[in-house]
Amino acid sequence: MKLYHGNIVYSKTREELVECQNSYIAVQDGVVEGIYPVLPEKFAGLPVTDYGEGILIPAFSDLHVHAPQYPQRGTAMDALLYDWLHGYTFPLESKYKDLAFAQKVYDAFVEDMIAHGTMHAVVFGTIHPEATGYLIERMEKAGLHAFVGKVNMDMDSPEYLCETVETSLKETEQFLEKYMENKTAKPILTPRFAPTCSWKLLKGLGEIGKKYQVGVQTHLVESRWEAEHSVHLYPECGSDTGIYEHAGLLGNGPVIGAHFIFPREDDIRLLKKYGGYAVQCPDSTLNIIAGIMQTGALSDRGVNIGLGSDIAGAANLGIYSQIARSVQLSKLKEFYEPEGNRTITFAQAFWMGTKHAGALFGNVGSLEPGYQFDALVIDGITDPFHALTPSQSIERFCYLGETGHIKARYLAGEAV
Amino acid sequence: MKLYHGNIVYSKTREELVECQNSYIAVQDGVVEGIYPVLPEKFAGLPVTDYGEGILIPAFSDLHVHAPQYPQRGTAMDALLYDWLHGYTFPLESKYKDLAFAQKVYDAFVEDMIAHGTMHAVVFGTIHPEATGYLIERMEKAGLHAFVGKVNMDMDSPEYLCETVETSLKETEQFLEKYMENKTAKPILTPRFAPTCSWKLLKGLGEIGKKYQVGVQTHLVESRWEAEHSVHLYPECGSDTGIYEHAGLLGNGPVIGAHFIFPREDDIRLLKKYGGYAVQCPDSTLNIIAGIMQTGALSDRGVNIGLGSDIAGAANLGIYSQIARSVQLSKLKEFYEPEGNRTITFAQAFWMGTKHAGALFGNVGSLEPGYQFDALVIDGITDPFHALTPSQSIERFCYLGETGHIKARYLAGEAV
Repeated sequence: MKLYHGNIVYSKTREELVECQNSYIAVQDGVVEGIYPVLPEKFAGLPVTDYGEGILIPAFSDLHVHAPQYPQRGTAMDALLYDWLHGYTFPLESKYKDLAFAQKVYDAFVEDMIAHGTMHAVVFGTIHPEATGYLIERMEKAGLHAFVGKVNMDMDSPEYLCETVETSLKETEQFLEKYMENKTAKPILTPRFAPTCSWKLLKGLGEIGKKYQVGVQTHLVESRWEAEHSVHLYPECGSDTGIYEHAGLLGNGPVIGAHFIFPREDDIRLLKKYGGYAVQCPDSTLNIIAGIMQTGALSDRGVNIGLGSDIAGAANLGIYSQIARSVQLSKLKEFYEPEGNRTITFAQAFWMGTKHAGALFGNVGSLEPGYQFDALVIDGITDPFHALTPSQSIERFCYLGETGHIKARYLAGEAV
Repeated sequence: MKLYHGNIVYSKTREELVECQNSYIAVQDGVVEGIYPVLPEKFAGLPVTDYGEGILIPAFSDLHVHAPQYPQRGTAMDALLYDWLHGYTFPLESKYKDLAFAQKVYDAFVEDMIAHGTMHAVVFGTIHPEATGYLIERMEKAGLHAFVGKVNMDMDSPEYLCETVETSLKETEQFLEKYMENKTAKPILTPRFAPTCSWKLLKGLGEIGKKYQVGVQTHLVESRWEAEHSVHLYPECGSDTGIYEHAGLLGNGPVIGAHFIFPREDDIRLLKKYGGYAVQCPDSTLNIIAGIMQTGALSDRGVNIGLGSDIAGAANLGIYSQIARSVQLSKLKEFYEPEGNRTITFAQAFWMGTKHAGALFGNVGSLEPGYQFDALVIDGITDPFHALTPSQSIERFCYLGETGHIKARYLAGEAV
């Protein structure tokens, strides 16, 4: 049994941010046992780690991040999407055929993600099985909850990143078999997006998904172009999301659709039907001029929404900053498209970045009893001349926080 | 003579970001003497401070910041503007009648501004002359270039912040007389905005402005409501900016109009006529749902544009983050209002946050010969596995930088 003292903030529901001032949290075998305003008699004599005015919050979940694009973050942001992909991103991704290069980047990526307080993530690799294997092993070794995918793409891509259907399917199946039994970092199918995947590839991936009962991540209705082009390619599917349903890729495990900015009704219906997550990546959609997700309206309609850093569409690994940006963009969405859209609250955005997204991985993302103790201690965010409540401090942390404000990090009850 | 070695990046023009790799910068009596790829013979034997791979850049200029709102940053961001002002901001501003409170806040504010690499600022105080006097003295003592204003407001404001015209004018004149001879932190007239100022007050301030040849800062066409309400109050003036011209407030010194989101043609004409600066405050206009300045189009038309943190409409004192946000918002502006708007480049935004804004204060904001050596050393922003040019590194710094990446700060040639 381990005991910690401080202030505690976590999401209970979409609307309710719970704050426990000056309280104790008891952790048994890496799992929260309870929160107490006064230390109970049963714990008398046990040592307490005292964080004083510090605030314990759950670690964050990043539902969309391209690990191989980590070296590119925050550069060439003036380039428009096509130039950015073909001039920078794709050439960079091709370097992951070199395992030694991949190891260096992925070590740094994982360390930096933890430094930013993210302990759970849904991650794109590249087409390269060895490099992506190293990434999933690295995350498993760190004990991070994750879904990690070897990317599939066999058309309309640069030659040096284009697979044959046969190789793509074979290597994907080998990747699944090798890592299916991982404890925390699990494999996931990762067709890049419909415009770069032939029907034969998608259908083959659907069969693999069914056989291994493994989920799928992809980019869904990210841009107007993608939303229209995908349905133009596969008109019988009715919607971008329908393509994945027709291919048999939905219903085998988690469904993660990054961006989800221009959904048809059918996209929304299907995402809800399969309990999928739409992932808002606020900074990224600013940078690549994709528009703004209708976060508030979709959430009101029962669509699961999480947040993503989308490195390197965006630069910052901190999901806390994306929580603030998500509130900001919901305001701009309402300003420009008042019909049906509404501003979301800080509490709602925090829930999307912690408890709600964490549910994808198991009992992580909250500090309620029964949840794995994946936690951060936030401190140094308040001023001596102006008292803030713990939840006000956490709001401020999301708006202006730096990694230096994260004074301690816990993963499954162990300090990291 | 002091010598520094490292990489050097600064704006030469709106379009041209200069980078000098592996170079020397010579500083004589706090002013840049020259930049040299190889150390000239004349400096042989002099000690060199070597920043290695570090990058020297000019310090930033923040053209719109409310120092008294510093304690409020990053809290209550869910509140809409009216509730935010009346529930949080105005009650907080009333506390500055207590000089001891003001001293604590303003000390922390100035230290934090410097920590974020801002050495030049246009600052709102409150209506309180003593507290605002402490602020301007504090900035003068630190050697920061600044324009600092005692706020004027005499109508449509909470009773506890409302002045009489007579007191407001008398205390403003005393404030000017006391600080006119300051070396770096100068007084500026600061009518809050037209909706809270009677004509008698504005006219009186215009006379003071003429008498002392001192400029003006205010909020200009920040919201649709303000743009319309101001002209409704003073219809004979033709535009929000016209009100200040009619009152005699333009043409006496610097003219700083914060936000400038909904200008009429007349606002643009007048701002250009008087060489005024429109200040974009990107995070703030996201938070308070004001819309997006037409930064690219206005700049193309020759309007001077600087950047502002607008604490506490926004939370972050780092102008570097607002440089990135300004690029991001210009993209969204083009997405939602393609007519006449265009995306700005990183180089343009960096120029707005450094050299162009710095011109308000004198020879600051660049590292060209003759400029005061107000500089920052940026380091720890690159990865060992992926080379970046110095200007790519500075772009990344603006997108994801933390105060910890600023390894050294110089003000007039002295380390601070």
